[in-house]
Amino acid sequence: MTHHHLGPESIHTVWDRDLPPALSIRPGDTVTFETLDASDGGVARRAAQGEVSGPPELLALAAADAHGPRSGPRGHPLTGPVFVEGAEAGDALRVELLEVRTAAWGWTGCRPDGIGLLDAALGAEGLKPYTHLWDLRAGDHAEFLPGIRVPLAPFPGVMGVAPGEPGPHPTAPPRSVGGNMDIRQLVAGSTLWLPVEAAGALFSVGDLHAAQGDGELSGTGIECAGQVTLRFGLERGANLSTPEFATPTHGGTSTRWHATTGHHPDLMEAARLALRPLLRRLEARGLTLEQAYVLSSACVDLKISQIVDAPNYTVSAFLPLDVFGEE
Amino acid sequence: MTHHHLGPESIHTVWDRDLPPALSIRPGDTVTFETLDASDGGVARRAAQGEVSGPPELLALAAADAHGPRSGPRGHPLTGPVFVEGAEAGDALRVELLEVRTAAWGWTGCRPDGIGLLDAALGAEGLKPYTHLWDLRAGDHAEFLPGIRVPLAPFPGVMGVAPGEPGPHPTAPPRSVGGNMDIRQLVAGSTLWLPVEAAGALFSVGDLHAAQGDGELSGTGIECAGQVTLRFGLERGANLSTPEFATPTHGGTSTRWHATTGHHPDLMEAARLALRPLLRRLEARGLTLEQAYVLSSACVDLKISQIVDAPNYTVSAFLPLDVFGEE
Repeated sequence: MTHHHLGPESIHTVWDRDLPPALSIRPGDTVTFETLDASDGGVARRAAQGEVSGPPELLALAAADAHGPRSGPRGHPLTGPVFVEGAEAGDALRVELLEVRTAAWGWTGCRPDGIGLLDAALGAEGLKPYTHLWDLRAGDHAEFLPGIRVPLAPFPGVMGVAPGEPGPHPTAPPRSVGGNMDIRQLVAGSTLWLPVEAAGALFSVGDLHAAQGDGELSGTGIECAGQVTLRFGLERGANLSTPEFATPTHGGTSTRWHATTGHHPDLMEAARLALRPLLRRLEARGLTLEQAYVLSSACVDLKISQIVDAPNYTVSAFLPLDVFGEE
Repeated sequence: MTHHHLGPESIHTVWDRDLPPALSIRPGDTVTFETLDASDGGVARRAAQGEVSGPPELLALAAADAHGPRSGPRGHPLTGPVFVEGAEAGDALRVELLEVRTAAWGWTGCRPDGIGLLDAALGAEGLKPYTHLWDLRAGDHAEFLPGIRVPLAPFPGVMGVAPGEPGPHPTAPPRSVGGNMDIRQLVAGSTLWLPVEAAGALFSVGDLHAAQGDGELSGTGIECAGQVTLRFGLERGANLSTPEFATPTHGGTSTRWHATTGHHPDLMEAARLALRPLLRRLEARGLTLEQAYVLSSACVDLKISQIVDAPNYTVSAFLPLDVFGEE
């Protein structure tokens, strides 16, 4: 059982079974990964150039993390890949999350022409580009605006292994070997099993979120850099079809929720129907549309209430009222 | 503030703004509704005829609730409608759930040619028709098989008001005026707001579920008859686009979960990809496919983990491990 450390010098931005391993380990070993934020320092650069607004102390924190843009293909900056000795196609790579530590600051953004449930073609009426900076130094929560505090529960948005199919694969979509799954219950104390497709598994991690609701509505959680410590194991011939995980958390910790509902033959549209009145509830509390959207992305949970009452299926969007100090 | 009682003599099986009200009330009044199970006594009749298997005591309980099949259109048997004085299109009907009491028994079923996430065309390989009977008399939990106990959290699967469009509307799909929403967080202590479209609102309730997971995978929760006590209020000109609710519960109470994940451009298919390995986990514990499916429908939660990482979106299916007495 050896402990390893992998720094940000081992960043890559595509999945590819032919990438040279940054590290080779044995089952049972632990690794601490330094990870960069999803923008690869882009928000820090914008803060340094005065293109993001926020409290001066927070802007200075962010600007200190600016670094030059990476050359090569765009994608999430991932730390790895880690070659696990003996791992073969058909095995499951067991990943125990021992610790997840965030940097001192994070960001959540939205844009009308980009990713997010409300994209340009589909209902982002009047939405402007917006980047919100968060101070993460309190550890257990982050203040969004005075009187609005989001509990923190950090996790890596991306954990995966190399696809069996040769060639580069983009990091944005998750797939059967994991990747950008953005599952907010994958906090420290969880265990993830990934289907191995390439020899050595070739595991990488990145894209920490200090908090996120089920759904990641605006396309971003509380994005941040940080440090993740994982223990690896192998389960021979598990033949998983898809990633599985065990977790001690089901979701939020609020004691009171306000939820909106959408009913539609398409679950994506049902989610949009639920999101719009939820944003209006937040706007009624004095938030701008952009603030409402990024706050929702950080803490609102989308649940499939029913997936069987044809022709309309129901998605409910749960807003935790304790973010407002209400019980 | 008057308290009213509405018995099963006031059952109807379609939504229709021209149905005669069974009761007229004022805002502030409370009503206790007697409700029938979704099969309208059908499972009880089958138990009486020896077409359902189960412990003799439970079969006798069920058989005692058999009644002749209802004539007229098929649909959920709903108790109502209640005319709320002064309610007009554009108002919101506020419904406070004061108490939900189940009958002594319930059922969960699946069939390969009917409703459910795994229907005949889409992956119900080898699935047989199956009806499971549950003893609900313990109140806080029900035993599925020895060593497997599901916590109970009863709620009405159907609460709604008459659509504004004249004519009969089927009860199966939920819509903007509510109906068969099957939202498991609508337990006692919750408040539901429904958009009023017809004069008097014309509220009805039915289809109690003693427990259900987010998703209602097999198309049925723990279906049962029972009694629901509600307090009604009006919010003028609220102009809701869709039902909203406040609830003290976010979902399950387990301390440990096993989850499977599906990643696909279509959320429905992502849910199916997550469900199949979950069923295999339950089969590995000795359950038949049918038992695994109906147990999942009663207690597994479907969450939209992310709805933004195009082209693949992620649905996770959460199995609460405390149903097996594990922590």
